Amino acid sequence: MIVTARLTFSAAHRLHNPARDAEWNRRTYAKCDNPRGHGHNYVIQVSVRGKIDPETGMVIDLKKLKDIVRERVIDRVDHTNLNEDVDFLRDVIPTAENLARAFWQQIAPAIDQGALHEVALQETEKNSVVYRGEDE
Amino acid sequence: MIVTARLTFSAAHRLHNPARDAEWNRRTYAKCDNPRGHGHNYVIQVSVRGKIDPETGMVIDLKKLKDIVRERVIDRVDHTNLNEDVDFLRDVIPTAENLARAFWQQIAPAIDQGALHEVALQETEKNSVVYRGEDE
Amino acid sequence: MIVTARLTFSAAHRLHNPARDAEWNRRTYAKCDNPRGHGHNYVIQVSVRGKIDPETGMVIDLKKLKDIVRERVIDRVDHTNLNEDVDFLRDVIPTAENLARAFWQQIAPAIDQGALHEVALQETEKNSVVYRGEDE
Amino acid sequence: MIVTARLTFSAAHRLHNPARDAEWNRRTYAKCDNPRGHGHNYVIQVSVRGKIDPETGMVIDLKKLKDIVRERVIDRVDHTNLNEDVDFLRDVIPTAENLARAFWQQIAPAIDQGALHEVALQETEKNSVVYRGEDE
Amino acid sequence: MIVTARLTFSAAHRLHNPARDAEWNRRTYAKCDNPRGHGHNYVIQVSVRGKIDPETGMVIDLKKLKDIVRERVIDRVDHTNLNEDVDFLRDVIPTAENLARAFWQQIAPAIDQGALHEVALQETEKNSVVYRGEDE
Amino acid sequence: MIVTARLTFSAAHRLHNPARDAEWNRRTYAKCDNPRGHGHNYVIQVSVRGKIDPETGMVIDLKKLKDIVRERVIDRVDHTNLNEDVDFLRDVIPTAENLARAFWQQIAPAIDQGALHEVALQETEKNSVVYRGEDE
Repeated sequence: MIVTARLTFSAAHRLHNPARDAEWNRRTYAKCDNPRGHGHNYVIQVSVRGKIDPETGMVIDLKKLKDIVRERVIDRVDHTNLNEDVDFLRDVIPTAENLARAFWQQIAPAIDQGALHEVALQETEKNSVVYRGEDE
Repeated sequence: MIVTARLTFSAAHRLHNPARDAEWNRRTYAKCDNPRGHGHNYVIQVSVRGKIDPETGMVIDLKKLKDIVRERVIDRVDHTNLNEDVDFLRDVIPTAENLARAFWQQIAPAIDQGALHEVALQETEKNSVVYRGEDE
Repeated sequence: MIVTARLTFSAAHRLHNPARDAEWNRRTYAKCDNPRGHGHNYVIQVSVRGKIDPETGMVIDLKKLKDIVRERVIDRVDHTNLNEDVDFLRDVIPTAENLARAFWQQIAPAIDQGALHEVALQETEKNSVVYRGEDE
Repeated sequence: MIVTARLTFSAAHRLHNPARDAEWNRRTYAKCDNPRGHGHNYVIQVSVRGKIDPETGMVIDLKKLKDIVRERVIDRVDHTNLNEDVDFLRDVIPTAENLARAFWQQIAPAIDQGALHEVALQETEKNSVVYRGEDE
Repeated sequence: MIVTARLTFSAAHRLHNPARDAEWNRRTYAKCDNPRGHGHNYVIQVSVRGKIDPETGMVIDLKKLKDIVRERVIDRVDHTNLNEDVDFLRDVIPTAENLARAFWQQIAPAIDQGALHEVALQETEKNSVVYRGEDE
Repeated sequence: MIVTARLTFSAAHRLHNPARDAEWNRRTYAKCDNPRGHGHNYVIQVSVRGKIDPETGMVIDLKKLKDIVRERVIDRVDHTNLNEDVDFLRDVIPTAENLARAFWQQIAPAIDQGALHEVALQETEKNSVVYRGEDE
């Protein structure tokens, strides 16, 4: 049984790898490399997998799951500039892929071991990613 | 190949475990324990997995799948109180998790063995669950 | 310029006019007359009309508008039974039309005179109403 | 008859009135005043009102309407910082209200006189504005 | 008070004016002039305006409104070719504008005089029209 | 890590197996067998699975993925009749299942071996399919 909570936040970001030159960055990120940034309304969906507790009828209290995501992710990234304002994103190029993995790493320690199933992040109506903790 | 039908229904429910005391229920379910109930527009998505029949180009006739879900689930739960009106939910705490599993149990006998893949149930824009028949 | 805030709540209700007999209620409300109730995820959109304040660039602070709607409507109706739990709905048949008008009456006194433009209430994906304060 | 085209863009912005002090800005715009900005996926809907041309069956060629909005708005604001990158927003506090009015002023000269009916701008799932050219 | 019902249908169509030559049609309708047609999932929203009946709490029984739209529009256009299969669209170029007006003409006679407020028709996520009976 | 691009197209189709008689086709496809066709706004979501490239922070450049899908699928099917206009669908009954598999076959050769994860195709709000390259 998989249980999913959906939350949203709004942030600015710039895609830029400071280890590479301007030409490489422009070719790789095109208009996402705008030095003054652009932004998105992100949708984050966090899924936990487990058995139903017969006493509560729940896998996890969704209210508690949302509180965890709010405290560990939303409150730190909402209405920020993801390149400059967020401690746990220092030295991270804020692509949707890197954000999903970083959010997983923020959330996982607060969830029973092995129960975190998926962090899905939608950047726009057209672009989204899913991370399931692979390669950790 | 996975084929999915989406249907909706509206119902009232109350989260409450009569085997536990009022304090436990309030702590566990908070405002979902309101004795007079609250309600939702539920979205149910039922998925069947199989090979494409080369003669029809279909895994399953989606119209027939919807008829099954309508007859076995929607017609029995739509515009009801899930705690009181539904035979197959007697003694079930109507959390999204328990509902998804109960709906799976209603639908599975009408689908070719092993073909039912997933029952997804969205309770609100923010809360949803997925059940794939585990632990049966 | 019209500014709109969107909020949601979940509630149970029953459509029933106690001044009329059972047969009339069944004919009028069909399955919405179920004595044990059913429920919905309601979407409320509240619109305010006004000029842009040149100093703030805003017609109204949307955060304040949402606080008003939350305090005067959402906190009183979310996770309730609309027939039994809500003071300002006593003796109101909780159709979408009556709810929209009652919500308008709750919100209007907190908004500058004449500025409240519209209360839209969506009951399901298929049913919605709009109220603009006519006949008051 | 009203015809509407829907387009989207993503941008960063900061709400800040440089004519006022830091305290006023923090009180007025709260976290939207973050000096490093935040951002949104904006949805713009542009409506034109007119009679149906009996020869084409159209009020306006929606493809041409979209080309106008793309050339005059989307291409200038997409993947930008609205405070710094956009000529026609110089000295404009980029609230949704001010953006909608500025977009109207960009689009109106390219539409037959009086035909532009409405510019609606959605900033998030919860916040939106509508402008119909009043006060011009 | 405005009450709105939302329904959907799927149909094929071709935009083509047989009174004009091939070159004019190609220039006017571009790929919508494909002789073998293309198609859409249409969303129709029908709005009725009126006072709330104090006895029912409703402006109009939404179930009855949907039955009217289903019988007079949906059942005649769903899974059809709008250019060839629909009596009331004979000699109508099936643009969204012309469809909305034709649907209004189908529905209006079944609604109390003056109560039909609006027929909105969405052709794609990006294109929609609204008709309010003007010029009749 | 799974990365998904969402694109849309509009097309007409008819479900019909010419190897079977009229009675079988009517029984199997019902109104989808209308000889003059009907149509849909299709939503295609293409997912690629891979590791994050540490230099770019991306699994695949979503812009390039969309260009591939646009060139190999969208530009060939948008505003067409899927039964008659599309080379790679010759002799394919255009059910959602067959379309998803055919689109996979179009897209896979342009993606690094094994990286294409899923092609999801939504035909209407109520019907969708997912294909992951099984049985090839």
